Amino acid sequence: MAKKQMTKSPLAPQSTPVLPKIEGVEFAVGSNGFYGDRNDVFIARFAEPASAAGVFTRSSTRSADVDWCRQALENGGGIAHGVVVNAGNSNAFTGAAGIAKNDATVAAMCELIGCDESNVFLAATGVIGEPLEPNLVANKVKEIWPSLGSASLNDVGAAFMTTDTFPKASHVQVNMDGADVRIAGVVKGSGMIMPNMATMLGYIFTDANLSPAVCQALLSRFTDETFNCITVDGDTSTSDTVMLFATRKSGPYIDDLSDPQLEAFATGLRSLMHDLAVQIVRDGEGATKLIEIAVEGAVSDASAKIIASSIANSPLVKTALAASDANWGRIVMAVGKTDQPVEREAISIWFGDIQVAENGMRAANYSEEAASKACQAEEIFIRVSVGAGAGEATVWTCDLTHGYVDINGSYRT
Amino acid sequence: MAKKQMTKSPLAPQSTPVLPKIEGVEFAVGSNGFYGDRNDVFIARFAEPASAAGVFTRSSTRSADVDWCRQALENGGGIAHGVVVNAGNSNAFTGAAGIAKNDATVAAMCELIGCDESNVFLAATGVIGEPLEPNLVANKVKEIWPSLGSASLNDVGAAFMTTDTFPKASHVQVNMDGADVRIAGVVKGSGMIMPNMATMLGYIFTDANLSPAVCQALLSRFTDETFNCITVDGDTSTSDTVMLFATRKSGPYIDDLSDPQLEAFATGLRSLMHDLAVQIVRDGEGATKLIEIAVEGAVSDASAKIIASSIANSPLVKTALAASDANWGRIVMAVGKTDQPVEREAISIWFGDIQVAENGMRAANYSEEAASKACQAEEIFIRVSVGAGAGEATVWTCDLTHGYVDINGSYRT
Repeated sequence: MAKKQMTKSPLAPQSTPVLPKIEGVEFAVGSNGFYGDRNDVFIARFAEPASAAGVFTRSSTRSADVDWCRQALENGGGIAHGVVVNAGNSNAFTGAAGIAKNDATVAAMCELIGCDESNVFLAATGVIGEPLEPNLVANKVKEIWPSLGSASLNDVGAAFMTTDTFPKASHVQVNMDGADVRIAGVVKGSGMIMPNMATMLGYIFTDANLSPAVCQALLSRFTDETFNCITVDGDTSTSDTVMLFATRKSGPYIDDLSDPQLEAFATGLRSLMHDLAVQIVRDGEGATKLIEIAVEGAVSDASAKIIASSIANSPLVKTALAASDANWGRIVMAVGKTDQPVEREAISIWFGDIQVAENGMRAANYSEEAASKACQAEEIFIRVSVGAGAGEATVWTCDLTHGYVDINGSYRT
Repeated sequence: MAKKQMTKSPLAPQSTPVLPKIEGVEFAVGSNGFYGDRNDVFIARFAEPASAAGVFTRSSTRSADVDWCRQALENGGGIAHGVVVNAGNSNAFTGAAGIAKNDATVAAMCELIGCDESNVFLAATGVIGEPLEPNLVANKVKEIWPSLGSASLNDVGAAFMTTDTFPKASHVQVNMDGADVRIAGVVKGSGMIMPNMATMLGYIFTDANLSPAVCQALLSRFTDETFNCITVDGDTSTSDTVMLFATRKSGPYIDDLSDPQLEAFATGLRSLMHDLAVQIVRDGEGATKLIEIAVEGAVSDASAKIIASSIANSPLVKTALAASDANWGRIVMAVGKTDQPVEREAISIWFGDIQVAENGMRAANYSEEAASKACQAEEIFIRVSVGAGAGEATVWTCDLTHGYVDINGSYRT
């Protein structure tokens, strides 16, 4: 069951940031051997009840863990005492066995913590459809429980990777009414990445003193603008989960979204989520280029996002860019294939500052050399104006290479 | 501008059928040098006015040629005197230059034939967004006009290929009220293939004596069940065109869809269109496997087609099958990512006769060995039951391989 060792993505950041300690939460990690010696389980335990919020996959074949978290958030009023996440098996499409694994895992945590079931949150990522031995994760929880506090959030970020080639971490510090407040997060994901959401798990912790409702509102809003604007292959996972936990150890108590003291926090959280989202694209399976696609002039922001996603998911666009080919005709194709209103004779396209198409045809001063040069860069910026309104959206993706075919032809077996 | 020579698809039929002559139509072919010495232009000329029908891309960035044909069918009442098709340049996204090329080409045909503009039909396939010299095709028409009758329909099928690795041809003969009636067709297309429709051009000729309205009704109905049920990469062309021409030389005159004499013809036409559609998938860029995906138990046939297409277009499913990996969890993912209603706990999946999932989890008698064996075949049959109703649909696709990345990273430059 050991997975092939992946080469680190050429788009990986130079180094992984060292995350600060968030007061009020402790971590432990362990291994069930799904990835050789590497850790593949983490648990989090909150010293006191933390505010919790979550955003989950909209897949109709979502995992039992996603069902569990949705229900727990509703039943428990958004209060967290503990978290258990395992990698190597997604616990999706596993029927009664999937529920049994969750029940055993939650029971173990409740007994150790002395909390209610709905205060424990779960996630699993990896192969779909292979039932887990129901007590496998629960037994690991009991085993690593005594080591709580020994693992850092960086260790957590390394413990739930699947085909990821580097751990993804980000943090910010903001000032709220004179108090220093920290936000730190880790995510995993590199394939099966597409709104809504990606094949991703994300855990963000803050010591801010926010109510569950405020956490949920901010997380939902910014997920739409960050994690839901990235795509690697247009495929959507059965396990996507992003959660935000506030340990309430620092800063003023805020229970009202319109509270001006929230502004700095919101800005910081959005920036952290954007950073983590782009890191996922940088680890896109087989990726050699990071591609930003900005669409403007659509009839609405939602329409712009559909058009941008159509470009971002087009295999023909992605293979051309892999070869540094400024094949902008394929962008025209990808704009045209959606059912969104556009004004064909007003469509213009740019690679960075280089305009390649204007008003429905090749730009008058088109230079193949200049366009090619813009596509040779490691980061490519595509802008498309579709002339139908004022809607705009930006999405991030990567190219489609031999590496993607290699990784996904050999992932499971 | 010469394109890389492609290796013949391993899924290509053993041989190309020799098409019968259809009385009442003559062909000529020529080359503008887009593919070295190979022909890249064909013209068709009808001895007497033929009934014409067409189905075209729904792309909002469709080519000037598609606009032309739609308008001509409407203005001319579905009567054809001539056809001109060129490969190597799609004449899409070319603004005024695109219209000028069409005007010049149509004018040349009208002068040679002595017919009205709306009796001439056009198509172009190839690179998007590069304006053609307006008289290039018109001059070629005049040059090859004297050789009309020298080219066969098989020659036509070879003259409009782009990245195709083999010519695609099919024919049937049916009996209508005691008379032999022939139907013969050629198509091109191997990438940018997705409903609706594929990057495909298709020309079907028959000597049947059908009215334009009957031709259009049959072509539209069967396109939905054949050419609109195939996908290579989920990308949709700006030039897709399928046309049916009836020279009216044989059999009873039919102007009424409910005429029982039409039955044999309709059956033959559907069978021919299905054969041609599957041939396109067999030439899918980089394809090594032909994959049939049948979805049943959806809330409607339309819903089943959306779910089947989601599976057929999933890069994760297609890369797994390229590696003969029976990774049915990815099929679960692809079912889940659509917004179509399914009953998760009732989903079952088969590879050929081998059931791999039943009622929302791995099949009780699941055998990895048997499933893998089914995926090692050159033709893979996937059946998915989603437990929500009586809707069903079948689509055809191919795997996603290194070959696809190679071809599309080097097609244009």
